[in-house]
Amino acid sequence: MTKGRLEAFSDGVIAIIITIMVLELHRPDGADLDAMRPLLPVFLSYLLSFVFVGIYWNNHHHMLHLTARVNGRILWANLHLLFWLSLVPFGTAWLGEHYRAPWPTAVYGVMLLCAGVAYRILAGAIIRDQGEGSRLRAAVGQDVKGRISAALYALAIPLAFVDHWISKGIFVVVAGMWLVPDPRIEAKIREGAEHS
Amino acid sequence: MTKGRLEAFSDGVIAIIITIMVLELHRPDGADLDAMRPLLPVFLSYLLSFVFVGIYWNNHHHMLHLTARVNGRILWANLHLLFWLSLVPFGTAWLGEHYRAPWPTAVYGVMLLCAGVAYRILAGAIIRDQGEGSRLRAAVGQDVKGRISAALYALAIPLAFVDHWISKGIFVVVAGMWLVPDPRIEAKIREGAEHS
Amino acid sequence: MTKGRLEAFSDGVIAIIITIMVLELHRPDGADLDAMRPLLPVFLSYLLSFVFVGIYWNNHHHMLHLTARVNGRILWANLHLLFWLSLVPFGTAWLGEHYRAPWPTAVYGVMLLCAGVAYRILAGAIIRDQGEGSRLRAAVGQDVKGRISAALYALAIPLAFVDHWISKGIFVVVAGMWLVPDPRIEAKIREGAEHS
Amino acid sequence: MTKGRLEAFSDGVIAIIITIMVLELHRPDGADLDAMRPLLPVFLSYLLSFVFVGIYWNNHHHMLHLTARVNGRILWANLHLLFWLSLVPFGTAWLGEHYRAPWPTAVYGVMLLCAGVAYRILAGAIIRDQGEGSRLRAAVGQDVKGRISAALYALAIPLAFVDHWISKGIFVVVAGMWLVPDPRIEAKIREGAEHS
Repeated sequence: MTKGRLEAFSDGVIAIIITIMVLELHRPDGADLDAMRPLLPVFLSYLLSFVFVGIYWNNHHHMLHLTARVNGRILWANLHLLFWLSLVPFGTAWLGEHYRAPWPTAVYGVMLLCAGVAYRILAGAIIRDQGEGSRLRAAVGQDVKGRISAALYALAIPLAFVDHWISKGIFVVVAGMWLVPDPRIEAKIREGAEHS
Repeated sequence: MTKGRLEAFSDGVIAIIITIMVLELHRPDGADLDAMRPLLPVFLSYLLSFVFVGIYWNNHHHMLHLTARVNGRILWANLHLLFWLSLVPFGTAWLGEHYRAPWPTAVYGVMLLCAGVAYRILAGAIIRDQGEGSRLRAAVGQDVKGRISAALYALAIPLAFVDHWISKGIFVVVAGMWLVPDPRIEAKIREGAEHS
Repeated sequence: MTKGRLEAFSDGVIAIIITIMVLELHRPDGADLDAMRPLLPVFLSYLLSFVFVGIYWNNHHHMLHLTARVNGRILWANLHLLFWLSLVPFGTAWLGEHYRAPWPTAVYGVMLLCAGVAYRILAGAIIRDQGEGSRLRAAVGQDVKGRISAALYALAIPLAFVDHWISKGIFVVVAGMWLVPDPRIEAKIREGAEHS
Repeated sequence: MTKGRLEAFSDGVIAIIITIMVLELHRPDGADLDAMRPLLPVFLSYLLSFVFVGIYWNNHHHMLHLTARVNGRILWANLHLLFWLSLVPFGTAWLGEHYRAPWPTAVYGVMLLCAGVAYRILAGAIIRDQGEGSRLRAAVGQDVKGRISAALYALAIPLAFVDHWISKGIFVVVAGMWLVPDPRIEAKIREGAEHS
């Protein structure tokens, strides 16, 4: 039950984050297609952030599925993750408005890196509570995907000052990497469903 | 439980979409009735979109009711649907501001068409997981209503450049078609409730 | 379960309505107390609307508690109620900005009246599904409080053009009338809890 | 079930409060790091308020966990708490914009004090319903932490006119005091979980 409320609150916050971003997509000033053209980078930033927040929701959902109970440390690790995610609308708005400048791209990367680190801290807090023989530990394993993502974000940040398109390409690659379903975790979940 | 969280998240996103649209209904500049007159098209766009989003929530609710479990593909098909729905406040604001222009009407139609297609993709993903003998497949049948709606949207888009009122009339007709309760699905649900 | 999702969605919409109203409470232009003075009517409108939306949430909560199942008609009657409630932030913003003018006060009254009527329609749809011997019918009885409220709103609308303070006084009286807990309904609920 | 809906509604409102605050973090006007500098006080106010709202969510969560049922009085005491919390985005925006002025700091303190008092009123309403031998009464005890917090807020309000940094330091100290997990309540909860 405690866990249920953590999920409900996280769902609420993530649902709001993913939806208020669209408020940055201001209606065009004119009534024809030309008026929509300047919105294209804003729209693409929105799309990218929608996918990233969707990935976090998805992974959060799977992780909590393998979590039996929560404690104070987990609650705060979860809020810490939500804090970084809550900055996504801000970073997205800046990226959409100044999409050719290095700083908004770099700051967007920093934001993703911090959210990624916060996610690992949350996973660590859950595993610490469950013990090392936990189902989540088994499912996550060495978390190669998480480590690669973090390394790629860390790479994308300085590269924004070389060519911001490289950094943006990296963001798209990382998003794609997570969109492809992870058969191992899905298998674990099916297994867990059978055992419980 | 997994399904419960998908519903909760979708409810959250749809609730936010349906509610933040009202933020476009800015308070009138003056204090008398004349000041409210320019709000009329904005209000009517809001009403139309409220009904459309309500229909999606309603149908989503019924569809998930006939769904026993979810997988990664279903989660992403659902997020894909929510993405198109999340653009409704944007399309509504543009339509309300420039309601006599063809482009906002056409773009509104595109948005509805994409949401309709996304809904069918989601239904397909669920049926694929359940197998062809599934309850949802039986309830949806040939999905005549969905096909007619999609055809009407596809018709409304080019017609906006002939006379935007025709397109708007089509939107109202489609909305009315869904507002009338569908006895077949309700029957299936009652049946399902008895069996479970 | 179907009912659970109706409640969850309604909770989401009402939670958003009650919270986004505060966005109208813009931060003062200056840094001292004088800068806050023009916010007073906006704050008081917010407080009044917060109480009204809170009353609706409260009553909705009690009504659904006495409802065993929902059908298509109930879903739409519920969305109809949420539609009128979703206009509250708009009405509140206008009332707060032009609090001495008759029109915003009258429109606020119309809004409350429509929400009240929508609430009765929803109650009627539930009772119609449950049958006249239903628990909700017994709890609601002749709904004297609801009828008096509607009559008072209907009175407050024209009176706004005589003296807007009278109308505002009526709104406060109606709110107060509902804030006092209704022992009959609470008793029915306790009773129901014992039987179920 | 009744309690479940109170939690769901509170979760919704708190999730919205914690998330819409980020809308005050407007995207910088320029594209470089200098453009972000004026956002620093806004960001720090956001961080402080995020932590405070997080603490309230956390404590609310624990308190409701020890609550078996709710009544009309508890529903309104809960709405009263949510009302004060709903003002946090307003107070945070003012504090972030005029962070060196005494009034925004003092008003922020008043807001926290009112929320703290509302929390105690809610705890009192629950204990009154459960009786003095209740689990919540045992867990809360003399509520030394709550009393100290209230006293510190009350101190921070006048001190804002002496040196606003002292008041801000007090806010940070109170937040830190609550961030450290409370072993007594966690113990009670674990105990309760075993007994139920």
